[in-house]
Amino acid sequence: MSEARAVSPLDDFRALAHTPLPDHSAAIAAAAAREAQLIKPPGALGRLEEIAAFLAAVTGKAPPVISSPRVVVFAASHGVADEGVSAFPSSVNAQMLAAFRGGKAAINQLCAAQNIGLSAFDLAVDVPSGNIAREDAFESDTALAATMAFGLEAIAGGVDLLGLGEMGIANTTVAAALYHGLYGGDAADWVGPGTGVAGTALAHKVAVVERSVARVEGERDPLILLRRIGGREIAAMAGAILAARSECVPVVIDGFVATAAAAVVHAMAPEAIGHCVFAHRSAEAGHGRVLERLGVRPLLDLDMRLGEGTGAALAIGLIRTAAACHAGMATFAEAGVSDAS
Amino acid sequence: MSEARAVSPLDDFRALAHTPLPDHSAAIAAAAAREAQLIKPPGALGRLEEIAAFLAAVTGKAPPVISSPRVVVFAASHGVADEGVSAFPSSVNAQMLAAFRGGKAAINQLCAAQNIGLSAFDLAVDVPSGNIAREDAFESDTALAATMAFGLEAIAGGVDLLGLGEMGIANTTVAAALYHGLYGGDAADWVGPGTGVAGTALAHKVAVVERSVARVEGERDPLILLRRIGGREIAAMAGAILAARSECVPVVIDGFVATAAAAVVHAMAPEAIGHCVFAHRSAEAGHGRVLERLGVRPLLDLDMRLGEGTGAALAIGLIRTAAACHAGMATFAEAGVSDAS
Repeated sequence: MSEARAVSPLDDFRALAHTPLPDHSAAIAAAAAREAQLIKPPGALGRLEEIAAFLAAVTGKAPPVISSPRVVVFAASHGVADEGVSAFPSSVNAQMLAAFRGGKAAINQLCAAQNIGLSAFDLAVDVPSGNIAREDAFESDTALAATMAFGLEAIAGGVDLLGLGEMGIANTTVAAALYHGLYGGDAADWVGPGTGVAGTALAHKVAVVERSVARVEGERDPLILLRRIGGREIAAMAGAILAARSECVPVVIDGFVATAAAAVVHAMAPEAIGHCVFAHRSAEAGHGRVLERLGVRPLLDLDMRLGEGTGAALAIGLIRTAAACHAGMATFAEAGVSDAS
Repeated sequence: MSEARAVSPLDDFRALAHTPLPDHSAAIAAAAAREAQLIKPPGALGRLEEIAAFLAAVTGKAPPVISSPRVVVFAASHGVADEGVSAFPSSVNAQMLAAFRGGKAAINQLCAAQNIGLSAFDLAVDVPSGNIAREDAFESDTALAATMAFGLEAIAGGVDLLGLGEMGIANTTVAAALYHGLYGGDAADWVGPGTGVAGTALAHKVAVVERSVARVEGERDPLILLRRIGGREIAAMAGAILAARSECVPVVIDGFVATAAAAVVHAMAPEAIGHCVFAHRSAEAGHGRVLERLGVRPLLDLDMRLGEGTGAALAIGLIRTAAACHAGMATFAEAGVSDAS
């Protein structure tokens, strides 16, 4: 597809999504061989074993080691908030950014309690993106490409497990618009209460998503959908996913909004999210449907719907523990334990 | 019920199950009031909020603090292993106990990675309990009471969150017998592969459970079922659950076998497991059915079926993080964040 286009500032990202990754078959085989010798019945650690295998496959290291996990929260403001789609005003974005920097928010506690690094990136929260109900979110492909490129900062400095989270009043509306644009169906399939809208306010949110997607009817290019009915934090997360992939860094996708970034990348090339783990099933309506479309099963299901990377932080705790378990357990031979008869 | 019986060494445990707990309504109200002021939409942290409320209700402390969590693994041997119900020999019990003490098993890694205390208790693994297919597991009520009393050691030394795990070749057979004895149905409803039996070996395991339960037909007293078709680690865990309750210590129940201890206590008095959280849904067939009977929803569903307290250790990580989140987050007023309009 991209080959047939004129040169675009987005072509680098299109190429990244299709770039083959290094051959990690030796690490995959070594991890599997080790797993089979650990002192437990085969398969008894279930998804913890899958996680160890996944980490070996993505990183090429056996046993895989997670020593520098980090959650990155991208904060952005959305013009579509003017349509009255959220229970909170857009001024909350800057306030929450200050809370992240002051250690006061939920994600700060989850990261501190688990010794996970945390960075919060301000995607110009004082300047909302275009109101997608009336205009494109980004002025140009160049503007989108610049925001996606900023996402590369998420892996700067040697992170070895990246959790992606976000903050942005009205961004469940934007995510729902992207899902509706990517997957069709009815707008109501993808719209949920977000921060807590219900009744006629929820019906209004559905109508805003319908109107936004009607504006781009027929558009099938995932990056053009992102430019026209997306938002900055979703674009930055999409860029971070692609950058992490090219650096063989596994990524933990948070919830409803973060998954929209993964859905855009998946629509570019399904294999381009092969290095992603989905942290949890959000309580936000529609998230389960999206996860099904992506063919993935989240690690957790705790009725959470906060964003900020909170689900990702909990999943990172599990993933790091799974890696430590795989690396630290003794084999039957080492421990002098009798294997199955 | 217990009042109508002759005096039994089990009566202290019957009384414990029915003892009312202290009034913690002030802590419950304080935790709920704090939760409502934290900088997030109401309910957005889902089960993390439920956990904070649960901890306040059990401990009487608001905000609840978890500073000394511990997993206790009770190891025991079962005469019914002689029936060939497991893929592993009973000699593995002592070998695994040595592995727990040497830091080599899965549970060691999960606890070390998460800074959770770990103790492994040897319930005389060199001397198997009675083969429940032919004889009672415990010789007498006194022997059962002594093992249950040993369970009290689990909370010695100031633990404030107790995870219960176990090790015992053939103990999924024993747990299945208890479920079949407590809940009826078909033996096959409660029997799964355990360490990995399948085909005719699995059918044989079902037949052994049928035979064991047929021996106690008509018996409805949960503690007598525990004495006759139970086992030492399950008895010790039941004792630990009752002891923790009386000390207002929340308990995290691991998987298929640990849940049998909770099921016995629940059958004594449903409210006597009100201080218990169920860590995960085991991959072992029948566990989901038991959790339904108990009316509980586990925190995790990771296809695990190892035992050792491995699911409990992961759940403790979540619970401690949930408590830290509730205690550490700022309120709307503290953070200067605008509340919902």
